[in-house]
Amino acid sequence: MTVDVDFGSDGLVPAVAQDADSGEVLMLAYVSPEALERTRETGHAHYYSRSRDELWEKGATSGHVQHVEEVRVDCDGDALLYLVDQEGGACHTGYRSCFYRTVEGEAVGDRVFDPDEVYDDG
Amino acid sequence: MTVDVDFGSDGLVPAVAQDADSGEVLMLAYVSPEALERTRETGHAHYYSRSRDELWEKGATSGHVQHVEEVRVDCDGDALLYLVDQEGGACHTGYRSCFYRTVEGEAVGDRVFDPDEVYDDG
Repeated sequence: MTVDVDFGSDGLVPAVAQDADSGEVLMLAYVSPEALERTRETGHAHYYSRSRDELWEKGATSGHVQHVEEVRVDCDGDALLYLVDQEGGACHTGYRSCFYRTVEGEAVGDRVFDPDEVYDDG
Repeated sequence: MTVDVDFGSDGLVPAVAQDADSGEVLMLAYVSPEALERTRETGHAHYYSRSRDELWEKGATSGHVQHVEEVRVDCDGDALLYLVDQEGGACHTGYRSCFYRTVEGEAVGDRVFDPDEVYDDG
């Protein structure tokens, strides 16, 4: 790729996923070099889970994949912006966006699915 | 505040600044507990500079302050979204947004000021 991405000391950069049509900021997650490569190859957003310590395709469990229209890099090369077409909701809680609350605790987002129906723990 | 923010092991959370009107994602920076407190108290976006290791008011040098209309928290409480009214441009390079390039290196953003006229190094 043309722009060098600075993956920093932990090998990850934060990536913001934004709805390409509405402009809604959907989530923030982390991306490894392999996650970026897979995202560009497949057109589906991939991230790296810090808690599970593994590469992760968004929507692999829920079906709520993100079709990536464009990947942008910031001025310092240490943050990414994924412009996506989001199937269903981005948030595992059922909201369209993970940023569904104000810091004062007021819910301002739209709930678009029931997580109990999407994630089968059985 | 009502929502507990998880500042993690380094005491910082990533914060996305988004234009409250246009929805444009302007920048990503890091926020300490004090930066969040000052942001909420003053209504001007504050961040914590990892490179300079200090609290930082956006626009203190350039005048390109961010008036914060709302602060949102994500589902895990470890990322913030500042909805802002941005004076001038968010990026020190003169672009409106720091995400002015695709990962392929194509410039897609709007340049709104000349950094040589705004930042006086003399």
